[in-house]
Amino acid sequence: MTTTTRDTVNGLDSSDPLAHYRDRFLLPPGTLYFDGNSLGPLPKETVQRMQDVIASEWGAGLIASWLEADWINAPLRVGNKIAGLIGAGEGEVIVADSTSINLFKTLDAALKLNPGRTTILSEAGNFPTDLYMAEGLASLVRDRANLAVVDPDEVLTALDENVAVLMLTQVHYKTGFIHDMKAITEQAHAAGALVIWDLSHSAGSIPLDLNGCDVDFAVGCGYKFLNGGPGAPAFLFAAQKHLPQCRPVLSGWFGHKDQFAFADSYTPTGDIRQFLCGTTPILGISALETGVDIFCEVDMASVRNKAIELGKLFIRLLKESHFEQYGFKLVSPEDSRHRGGHISIAHENGYAIMQAIKDRGLVGDFRSPDVLRFGITPLYQRFADVYDAAGVIREVMETAAWDREEYKQRSLVT
Amino acid sequence: MTTTTRDTVNGLDSSDPLAHYRDRFLLPPGTLYFDGNSLGPLPKETVQRMQDVIASEWGAGLIASWLEADWINAPLRVGNKIAGLIGAGEGEVIVADSTSINLFKTLDAALKLNPGRTTILSEAGNFPTDLYMAEGLASLVRDRANLAVVDPDEVLTALDENVAVLMLTQVHYKTGFIHDMKAITEQAHAAGALVIWDLSHSAGSIPLDLNGCDVDFAVGCGYKFLNGGPGAPAFLFAAQKHLPQCRPVLSGWFGHKDQFAFADSYTPTGDIRQFLCGTTPILGISALETGVDIFCEVDMASVRNKAIELGKLFIRLLKESHFEQYGFKLVSPEDSRHRGGHISIAHENGYAIMQAIKDRGLVGDFRSPDVLRFGITPLYQRFADVYDAAGVIREVMETAAWDREEYKQRSLVT
Repeated sequence: MTTTTRDTVNGLDSSDPLAHYRDRFLLPPGTLYFDGNSLGPLPKETVQRMQDVIASEWGAGLIASWLEADWINAPLRVGNKIAGLIGAGEGEVIVADSTSINLFKTLDAALKLNPGRTTILSEAGNFPTDLYMAEGLASLVRDRANLAVVDPDEVLTALDENVAVLMLTQVHYKTGFIHDMKAITEQAHAAGALVIWDLSHSAGSIPLDLNGCDVDFAVGCGYKFLNGGPGAPAFLFAAQKHLPQCRPVLSGWFGHKDQFAFADSYTPTGDIRQFLCGTTPILGISALETGVDIFCEVDMASVRNKAIELGKLFIRLLKESHFEQYGFKLVSPEDSRHRGGHISIAHENGYAIMQAIKDRGLVGDFRSPDVLRFGITPLYQRFADVYDAAGVIREVMETAAWDREEYKQRSLVT
Repeated sequence: MTTTTRDTVNGLDSSDPLAHYRDRFLLPPGTLYFDGNSLGPLPKETVQRMQDVIASEWGAGLIASWLEADWINAPLRVGNKIAGLIGAGEGEVIVADSTSINLFKTLDAALKLNPGRTTILSEAGNFPTDLYMAEGLASLVRDRANLAVVDPDEVLTALDENVAVLMLTQVHYKTGFIHDMKAITEQAHAAGALVIWDLSHSAGSIPLDLNGCDVDFAVGCGYKFLNGGPGAPAFLFAAQKHLPQCRPVLSGWFGHKDQFAFADSYTPTGDIRQFLCGTTPILGISALETGVDIFCEVDMASVRNKAIELGKLFIRLLKESHFEQYGFKLVSPEDSRHRGGHISIAHENGYAIMQAIKDRGLVGDFRSPDVLRFGITPLYQRFADVYDAAGVIREVMETAAWDREEYKQRSLVT
């Protein structure tokens, strides 16, 4: 194997058509940030935008800003922008609440659209909150729903005549494996089930075509690849054809057909806004919108192309470092077509290794029990950053720098 | 009736022990803001705090801020501060989601704690989202819950052996009427029902003693009197004695006993944190904390005392303007003991009058079909502001300034 040189990667950066987007973000000096799949960094424009939202819209505009700063339409306005990134139509995406809450809404909606069937099907090892929310809903409606969690390779054969809805995360949070959305949705529909896709690790990372795949419902996260800020509000997609039949159970006043009539009983809007519940979090949605706006300038295909090249380089550099001889295993699919926006490697001392790596300025994260994750985020990552990241990992392993007590002591958040 | 003079009110401001708090807020010049019961104004400290959260915690700290900036404990930390304002104990209040979502959580919890009973009892004209959320939950669990909405004066007699939970808003959003929390809670308990109090118009406005009143559950709003910013996250109170028995149905990963074990099945924390669901909205909760911090410096009794005096002055000035001769009726209780943090008057041309009033710099709000609301917020309101506000209302009525087509055209948000 020939060794990749810094000159080679510098050449890749020089010819990168997305290179100038890096300047749109505030990245701390001396940090190699490979955790944008967990919390995206701060766009420069967000700093100014939030000053305006706080000082002008809230501070000076006060209550009038619901109309004059168009706060009232922010969930649909930002939803429509996200729709453009995920292959959804106008009026099919709303920004609201958290991914967890939106899962509850879509699970309830899907169950009601498929009466007579009771099973929510998902896979073991799915992102926990997805399973927990389904568990909660099933516990509430009892005989009208049950959660079946099967091994990933048994999902398709488990699509029996009792499955009301198949709920999967498209890009796996731990491995980065990408499910084939089109094929699985087709198979679910053929078996009479609806589908809910969790796009938390997809939106802003890979091109999506929800309507082309005939997806029923989807949810996703605003604070990862979309760079919407810590705990940014989430989004919810519902196919247009389902909207008139949905009657949301989290039926808050922001989803009411005539919100300011203050009627005693609930009438849903009948459109995507019915999936709103409480008052829109204006600070959060404003920061999210600024993050999403950057994506509205770029072509997701070019983002994806660069991500694939960054990922290939990272894996090649790990191999050149003989990372398997140090006890690592590649967890993510090596075939780029099946790998989303992060690369995961496993090591029995993964926790301590990640702490040692962080101490040297490379920020990835650890997922129990043994996975080290490294986010691939083309808008602000350089090929040179991947080169340097691989260098940090190599140095930590060559010097056994991780083998210290202080790195082995677990903290609450990993 | 003697006429109140500007000298008299200036004297009241001079001897007001809370007067200096006004300087802690950014209030737009030329505006008399009487809508802090709907959206509190911007504390000066929030501007700086949000710059720090955005630039330092998110921008520079990135993912590490979950621990290093203690984001992970924000819901409990801010919850404990709010606990101090509402007569709750440490570990009984959490900040999360919206008031609507928190109502759903507490309704579900209360129903489960009172098995065999199925009725959720509330009053007609309660804040709509409260009724809508109960309606949604009842539609979901069907034969295990039903919503009974009775006239306000029939609530206590409707407390029959089938009522599982009584859900009331302590201070009415339209009239400002204060329910007697202690007496009603006692009567509900005597009838075998649990209680949920919505404190959206109470917290930061009147002294509260949840534990002294033996309240079971409560929810409340962060963006009104607490000045937490538009769409600020809400809070949830659960009495300590109930916590071990609760198994939240909105069972997201932030309420899991071992969140970062990423287990497939849900185990609640068993403490108040189990009422967390998705990822905490850090921008929103940070702004809320700054608003709450101001209240932590003051004694709620002195806030309430000033509110009563401001309210008395407002009503006296309205009377001196012969407001009833212009067709107004006082909607709020005249007895200060029964009136919370706003004063409502009704007029058949209320909508147009409010628009004319706003055009003259006095910001209140309109609630369908005929109510004009004026918020009383002692931390930043002066007696002179009340004097000037009454003057604007008088002028608008004396000159019939409201009687113009442009003021009569309704907009979406009132």
